[in-house]
Amino acid sequence: MQRGRRVFRFRLSAKDGRARTGVIETPRGEIRTPAFMPVGTAATVKAMLPESVRATGADILLGNTYHLMLRPGAERIARLGGLHRFMNWDRPILTDSGGFQVMSLADLRRMDEDGVRFKSHIDGSEHLLSPERSMEIQRLLGSDIVMCFDECTPHPAAKDVAAESMRLSMRWARRSRDAFGDRPGHALFGIQQGSLYPDLREESAEALKAIGFDGYAVGGLAVGEGQEAMFGVLDTAPEMLPEDRPRYLMGVGKPDDIVGAVARGIDMFDCVLPTRSGRTGQAFTRRGVVNVKNARHAEDDRPIDPDCACPCCAGYSRAYLHHVFRAGEIIASMLLTWHNLHYYQELMVGLRGAIAEGRLDAFRAAFEANRAAGDLAPIGGGAG
Amino acid sequence: MQRGRRVFRFRLSAKDGRARTGVIETPRGEIRTPAFMPVGTAATVKAMLPESVRATGADILLGNTYHLMLRPGAERIARLGGLHRFMNWDRPILTDSGGFQVMSLADLRRMDEDGVRFKSHIDGSEHLLSPERSMEIQRLLGSDIVMCFDECTPHPAAKDVAAESMRLSMRWARRSRDAFGDRPGHALFGIQQGSLYPDLREESAEALKAIGFDGYAVGGLAVGEGQEAMFGVLDTAPEMLPEDRPRYLMGVGKPDDIVGAVARGIDMFDCVLPTRSGRTGQAFTRRGVVNVKNARHAEDDRPIDPDCACPCCAGYSRAYLHHVFRAGEIIASMLLTWHNLHYYQELMVGLRGAIAEGRLDAFRAAFEANRAAGDLAPIGGGAG
Repeated sequence: MQRGRRVFRFRLSAKDGRARTGVIETPRGEIRTPAFMPVGTAATVKAMLPESVRATGADILLGNTYHLMLRPGAERIARLGGLHRFMNWDRPILTDSGGFQVMSLADLRRMDEDGVRFKSHIDGSEHLLSPERSMEIQRLLGSDIVMCFDECTPHPAAKDVAAESMRLSMRWARRSRDAFGDRPGHALFGIQQGSLYPDLREESAEALKAIGFDGYAVGGLAVGEGQEAMFGVLDTAPEMLPEDRPRYLMGVGKPDDIVGAVARGIDMFDCVLPTRSGRTGQAFTRRGVVNVKNARHAEDDRPIDPDCACPCCAGYSRAYLHHVFRAGEIIASMLLTWHNLHYYQELMVGLRGAIAEGRLDAFRAAFEANRAAGDLAPIGGGAG
Repeated sequence: MQRGRRVFRFRLSAKDGRARTGVIETPRGEIRTPAFMPVGTAATVKAMLPESVRATGADILLGNTYHLMLRPGAERIARLGGLHRFMNWDRPILTDSGGFQVMSLADLRRMDEDGVRFKSHIDGSEHLLSPERSMEIQRLLGSDIVMCFDECTPHPAAKDVAAESMRLSMRWARRSRDAFGDRPGHALFGIQQGSLYPDLREESAEALKAIGFDGYAVGGLAVGEGQEAMFGVLDTAPEMLPEDRPRYLMGVGKPDDIVGAVARGIDMFDCVLPTRSGRTGQAFTRRGVVNVKNARHAEDDRPIDPDCACPCCAGYSRAYLHHVFRAGEIIASMLLTWHNLHYYQELMVGLRGAIAEGRLDAFRAAFEANRAAGDLAPIGGGAG
């Protein structure tokens, strides 16, 4: 970490096909790319202590503007010294703009050119989210990477609807840039929209580049379009964006989504999948997903993944995880969330190493082959 | 730890008045006394990883026979290598006999001279608990300190009822001793009953000593009789038991219960209070109990206890704990359980040191004075 330097800089170190690896330097530490950002919605990565999140290899967390503005409130977090101090995480934090969640979670939304007025889903209180208010909230939180306020175009969208939505987001991107101002060491990312339409994606990319951002997100994906359609967009969208800035695919995804997106030039990801699945008994492994609630694991003394070095796999059997999930014990969520985050970060380690050494194709082939082979064969027992 | 030695031995090192300090040597490690045993009901100390429990200073855990026999089952745990391996805790474990919980939790109980037949509160399956079955289950679990199967006499109890109940427990103590057999390195503790009646306590102590145990519990307390009545029993009951064996007060208790009982000659304790309170927002401190859900903490940037070295107090404000409790986040239970267990173990460290140095009276006076002074004064804020 280079705490003394007030710089935000992306340094690409290698390419393999369209895939890239490098480092984002920030005053709060380096972010190795391709990077996976665990989601810390309400100022906590659910069921994890921050030092455990770091131990999995995470360089950066994501915080949700919508949740934090409603509870405990951005001004309160600012009075308490900012989000990093509040949640005991001193490395980089990226915050979303609140735009996506206000449309999916809030009550009584009313959107116009200015922004979105809505009622809190927690207590019914009235709020406004606009480009200016979103920038203010993210500044109050102390976010290191701030996202433009945009509208995530729903899927499916007719072309004229997608175009209108994208152009509104581009006007909001300009207002976000103006409201963000000059904040050395902090970054503002623009968000490309345009649904599944290549010419709208191109128009959006040009509009964002004309404004100028520290990084660029590909938005409006992972909203139900399916992997094939998403990869279709990613076959061209990332390269519409500047080569020398990080590219962030918002809200993605499953391990194979990430591998495919990295191969198409994406540098950053966030997703609730590893944490949420950890609380429902789903474990990610190189052999695919293991559901520890399944009766076949009740007497299985093997870890989730014998080749995994996480504390869950080092200390606990499938039988134990099966038991504590059935019993509703908190340790079940703690252990499996840790395992899943470890798996995701190990996947990123593997991707970075493969790109650096020019062997991404072989890495992808092994990744697919391991998954195709499936979980360990069941062992005897099960009675009792 | 002295894993090579198959011995169980209690070594008293100092006395201060009736209070004692020493070490219980076991093949799985030493237990410093007076000792507090965190409760790991269903093969987990709720909301804690075992290495974190150890980090608080715990030398031994308690496991619940009743819960474990029903789910996942004692035979299953045995097939999986025993409770220590199952729950990833390699230090000593004490298991209760199941006698107390079968009477408080099970459905359709039918007790006779043989034991208790009952239906599981989880799935309605039928089970028997008897001295012989309890010894078998505790052996299958691999417990280091096994408790006799007894009836915890309810409170209040008329003297004839208390006498009859105690004498049944003494017959069961004999059967427990016979069924336990000779297991080097493992200990069997007898349990004194007799309600609030000194002569029944004396009769029970004599019966147990005639059988001969590795340690002795004072049972039938912490069942609603109140601290004054409990201390009344403890003014005489511990000294009815052998000086050279550990004395265990089951199910106790609040910090002031423990301090008073240590002063009266008790060596071992267990209680769900620090863990259960950690899940409901109650923090134990030397200044008394702090309820982090209270609105006064919403903008309080201070830790629960500025003098506490636990990870919760080192890294998190009352405001943060208030927020995560309000938001229902798992980290709230994780942090406050850790703090509470740390507090309890620090209390035991203080008691052991005070006894060793002959200053228990001064320790108790400071303990009371700190509690009388109350929590830190509120700070400003609270709005927002």
